[in-house]
Amino acid sequence: MSFVQVIPLGGADEIGKNCNVVRQGDDIVVVDCGLSFPSEEMLGVDIVIPDFRYLLANRDKVRGVFITHAHEDHVGGLPYLLRELQVPVYCSPLAAALLRPKLEERVGAKAFDLRIFNPGDIIEAGSLSVEPIRITHSIPETCAMAVRTAQGIVLFTADFKFDFTPVDGKMANITRLGELGREGVIALVSDCTNAEETGWSLSESVVKNGLRNAFANAQGRVLLTTFASNIHRMQQTIDVAAEMGRKVAIAGRRMEQTIEICAKMGYLKLPPGVMIALRDSTQYPAHQLAILTTGTQGEPLSALVQMSKGEYSRLQIQKGDTVLYSARPIPGNEASIWRTVNRLFRQGATVLYQTPQPIHVSGHAHQEELKMMINLTRPFYLMPVHGEPRHQHQYRRMALEMGHAEHRIFEMRDGVPVCMDERSAWLGEPVEFGRVLVDRGGEPGISDDVLRDRSNLSNDGFVAVTVVVDVDTGELVGPPTFQHRGIHAKPEAIAGLSEFIADGLSTFSRDDLKDVDRVRFDVADLAKRHLHKKAGIRPVIVPIVVEV
Amino acid sequence: MSFVQVIPLGGADEIGKNCNVVRQGDDIVVVDCGLSFPSEEMLGVDIVIPDFRYLLANRDKVRGVFITHAHEDHVGGLPYLLRELQVPVYCSPLAAALLRPKLEERVGAKAFDLRIFNPGDIIEAGSLSVEPIRITHSIPETCAMAVRTAQGIVLFTADFKFDFTPVDGKMANITRLGELGREGVIALVSDCTNAEETGWSLSESVVKNGLRNAFANAQGRVLLTTFASNIHRMQQTIDVAAEMGRKVAIAGRRMEQTIEICAKMGYLKLPPGVMIALRDSTQYPAHQLAILTTGTQGEPLSALVQMSKGEYSRLQIQKGDTVLYSARPIPGNEASIWRTVNRLFRQGATVLYQTPQPIHVSGHAHQEELKMMINLTRPFYLMPVHGEPRHQHQYRRMALEMGHAEHRIFEMRDGVPVCMDERSAWLGEPVEFGRVLVDRGGEPGISDDVLRDRSNLSNDGFVAVTVVVDVDTGELVGPPTFQHRGIHAKPEAIAGLSEFIADGLSTFSRDDLKDVDRVRFDVADLAKRHLHKKAGIRPVIVPIVVEV
Repeated sequence: MSFVQVIPLGGADEIGKNCNVVRQGDDIVVVDCGLSFPSEEMLGVDIVIPDFRYLLANRDKVRGVFITHAHEDHVGGLPYLLRELQVPVYCSPLAAALLRPKLEERVGAKAFDLRIFNPGDIIEAGSLSVEPIRITHSIPETCAMAVRTAQGIVLFTADFKFDFTPVDGKMANITRLGELGREGVIALVSDCTNAEETGWSLSESVVKNGLRNAFANAQGRVLLTTFASNIHRMQQTIDVAAEMGRKVAIAGRRMEQTIEICAKMGYLKLPPGVMIALRDSTQYPAHQLAILTTGTQGEPLSALVQMSKGEYSRLQIQKGDTVLYSARPIPGNEASIWRTVNRLFRQGATVLYQTPQPIHVSGHAHQEELKMMINLTRPFYLMPVHGEPRHQHQYRRMALEMGHAEHRIFEMRDGVPVCMDERSAWLGEPVEFGRVLVDRGGEPGISDDVLRDRSNLSNDGFVAVTVVVDVDTGELVGPPTFQHRGIHAKPEAIAGLSEFIADGLSTFSRDDLKDVDRVRFDVADLAKRHLHKKAGIRPVIVPIVVEV
Repeated sequence: MSFVQVIPLGGADEIGKNCNVVRQGDDIVVVDCGLSFPSEEMLGVDIVIPDFRYLLANRDKVRGVFITHAHEDHVGGLPYLLRELQVPVYCSPLAAALLRPKLEERVGAKAFDLRIFNPGDIIEAGSLSVEPIRITHSIPETCAMAVRTAQGIVLFTADFKFDFTPVDGKMANITRLGELGREGVIALVSDCTNAEETGWSLSESVVKNGLRNAFANAQGRVLLTTFASNIHRMQQTIDVAAEMGRKVAIAGRRMEQTIEICAKMGYLKLPPGVMIALRDSTQYPAHQLAILTTGTQGEPLSALVQMSKGEYSRLQIQKGDTVLYSARPIPGNEASIWRTVNRLFRQGATVLYQTPQPIHVSGHAHQEELKMMINLTRPFYLMPVHGEPRHQHQYRRMALEMGHAEHRIFEMRDGVPVCMDERSAWLGEPVEFGRVLVDRGGEPGISDDVLRDRSNLSNDGFVAVTVVVDVDTGELVGPPTFQHRGIHAKPEAIAGLSEFIADGLSTFSRDDLKDVDRVRFDVADLAKRHLHKKAGIRPVIVPIVVEV
C-alpha cells in the first residue's frame, strides 16, 4: 500500500475543529486538533470536538500530533484526544507555553508529552517526516507543515497570510516554500477562509495608524476588544496607548493569562510604567486610560459583554467611553455582537467597528496571496480546507481561472480520504468521523436524542402526568395530577387535563390498569391529544405511573 | 393640555414592531402596528408584538391606525390590536388588498374597518388630522404621514429612500415634503436604518442590469430569492426572465398569494406566456427556467431553506442551479442564511450574493437622503426611529454635523413620550409599553418565567423525581423513582440518585414525611445537590410527592 491518504477529521468544509491526518501504510501524522463553537441548535453544548474514533482504532500507528499554531480551533480538542491516546505533541515554544497549563489542568501533569520544534527541523514520524515552515498569521510562530511522503510533500498551509511588515519582524519563509515546490508538492492543503476577498489582506502594521487615529479622537477612556491570542494586536495597542500617555489595564482572565505568559517569554514587550491593575484604573482621569478586554464575539461570559449588561463588577461603562472593536465577526456571531454593541451605545459609549483607517485586519490570505501560495509550491493536487463550502467553491473557481485542472482540485470533506499514488488520486472509503458535543462540565458525547429532547423542551416545555394505580384492585387512586414547566397555554386548557385523562382511563378494565406500560402509553397519548386540541401546544409529555 | 406627545410603543430603537402614537389631549392617532421576529433566546416564540395596554387604557381616544406600508414590521401586529380594539384602519389600496385576507382570517370578516386613502387626502382624527404623502421604498404605495397638531406637523417619514427611477414610475412627492416644511414641521420622526451608509442608496432600477448579468451567466436554472413583498423586484425578475427566454415559476405560498393579488390589481404586469406552475417546470430545459422563491432570511419553513435541506417536495436543487440572493441579511439572521447558502453549495448549486453589478439595493435612505429629508422638511425636533441604538447614534452625529442643535435631537425609546408645546420639548412620564411574545398557536403573552424555564430546560434538561408517602404511617413507600429528558451525564452519576434521596429522607421523622411541602422541597434540594456534585449538571428538578 504505497499510496498516501489525506483524511480530514474536522475543519474541512467548516471553520473550526481543524484536525487533519496524513497516512502512509502504518504511519499516521495528525496536523492540529481543534475545537469549534456550538451553533444555536446545539442547546446546552459548550464546545464541539472531532470524533477521534479513527485515531483510537489506529492508535498504534499515530506517530505524533503537529500543531501549526495555538488558536482554539487548532488546539482546543487536544485535551480530549490526549485523555484517550498517548502520543507526542509537537509545537512551537509559544504554543507550548500557552498549552502546557491547560493540559496540566485537564489531562494531568505527567500524562502528556509536549515537544518543541523550530522552523526547519525535520521530525521523523515513521516512514513520514514533518518539517515546520514559518508563516505569518494573527498569532506568532504559526508554521505551515510539510509532510514528506513516498508520493511527495503534502503541504499544510496552516492559517496564513503574506504579511511583509509583520509586527515581530518575522516574515513568512517564502524562499523555503519555493524550494519545497521545486522538491515536489503533491498536495497543497490550503486555508481558503478569505477566498471570496480579492487582492491582498492588509499588513498587521497598518493597524497601528488606525489605532492612533481612534485613540486621538477619543475624549474619554478607550476600551479595545480583540482576541486574547492576538499578541501583535495587543502589542500595538499597548505601544499606541503609551505614545498617547494612557495607562493600560486588562479586563478578562484569558487575556491576563496570555499577556503574562507572553511578557515573561519575550513575545510581548511591555513599556515600563504603562501597565496597571484594573482596580487602579479609577485613579486616573478617563483620557489617560486604555482597557484591553475580551469579548469580540459577543461571548456571554466575556468581560465586554458583561460590561455591556452592567454585570461586570470590576468595571462599568461610562458615558464618553470609546469602545474599539479590533476584530471582525466570525460568521454566525453577528447577532450577539450587535446586541452587545447596541447595549454599549445605550450606556452612552461610542462604539467603533468600521473606521476609515482600519483597526483590524484579517489573518487570512486574500485571493492574490492564495494564488501566490499555489505558484510558489506548484502542487499537483489542491485541497482547500478551513472554509465553508462557499469559500471552497470560490477557491476552486480561482484555481480554475489560474489554469489548474478541474480533476486535481478536491473540495475536502470530513471523513473522506483523498488517496494518491504515482498515477492518480481517488476518494477512499469514508472513515469514522463526526462531531462530539461537550457539555459545560467537560463531558463529551451529548447525543442527538438529548439535543432533540432539549429542542422540544425549549419550544414547548413539558408536562409530567402522575397517575396512581392500586395494583391489587386495578383501580386509579385519586385523580391524575400533573406538573409542568415552560408551557404557555390558557389556564382553562390546562385545567381540563386531569379530568380528560381520568375519563380516558375510566374505560380501562382492571387488568388493563394493572398493565403499567399500557397505562403509561395511554396517559401520554391522552395528555398529548388534550393539550394539542385545547391549547394548541405540543409539550414533552412524561407519564409517571405509581403502583401501590 | 395643548401640548403634543409623540410616544413610540415599538420600533423606536430597534428594527421591528413599529408602532407610534401621536396624542393631543383626547385624540390619539396610531401610525403603523407591526411585529418583530424573536431573537434566539425567545425559545418557542413565533412573533413579537408591542404591548398595547396604553392604547387599550385610552381606547376611547384612539381615532385611527394609519398604515404607511404593508411590511410585516408595520402591519403584523394589527390582528392582535384589532381583536381588542375597534378602530378604523387607514391604508393604501395595495396594503388593503394584502391585509384584508389576513384580517378576515384572524379577526373575523365583520370585525374590522379598513378604509382606503390616497396620497394628499386629509383624514380627520378628532383635533388631529393625517395626510399621507407618497414616498419611495421597497414596496409600492408607501406613504409618509403628516399628522397636523396644534404645535405643527409631526411628520413620520415611514421607511423611505429617494429613488428617482422607481420601477412603477411613481416618485416620492418631494415638492409636497418641501411645502410641509414651509408650513411648519415641529418634529420629524425619521427612519434611520441606513444612517451608517454614506452617499445615496442605489435606485431599484439598477437591479435590472445586475439581474440580466446574473441570468446571462447562468448555464442552468436560476432560482432567485427575494422578499415576497418586494413587488418591483419580482417585476424586474419576471421581465428579465422573459427577455432571456425563461419561464417563471413561484415556490412559496406567501409569494404565490402576493403575486396573485398584485397581478389582479395591476401592480404586477405579467408578460403573457411566461408564468408557469411549479409542477410544470420539469417540462422545460434548465436554461429556460427561473424560479422565484421565498427564504431570503433563512426562515426554516421557507421554500429555499427546505430546498437546501432536500425537504421541499415540490422542487429539488440540481447541480448547475444558480441561486441569486436578491436581498440582504437583516442583522441577526446571518447564521441561518450562511447555513442555507452552504447547504445549497453542497448540493452543487452556485450561490451569488455579492455581485459586481448589484442584484439587490436597499429600501432605506443613506446619509445624503436622510439629510435631504431634513433639509426639505426643516423640522424643529429630530426623532430618529426604526434603527438600533448604533444607527440612532450615527443619525444624531450626522444631524449635529449639519448644525442641528443637540438638545433638539431625541433618540427615541419605546414607552418614553416626547412632549412639545409652544416653548419647549421634554420627556414625559413613561407609559405602559413592552413586548408581547406570541407562540405558534397565535396565543400572546408568553411570560419571562416561561422563557426562563425553557432556557434552563434547553441547557440541562429536567429530572422529575417521584416519592410515594403513606400518609397514615408517615413512611416512604418504595424507593424514589425518577424520569428525565434532555440530560447528559454519566450513567453512574444518575444511578445513585434514588439512593441518595432515600438516604436523605431517612432522617425525616414520620411527621416530617407527612408534611408534603417540606418533602417536596427537600427532595428537590437533595436531587439538585446530588446531580451537581456527581454529574456537574443543573437540570430543572420537578419533585412529585404522591400521598397514599
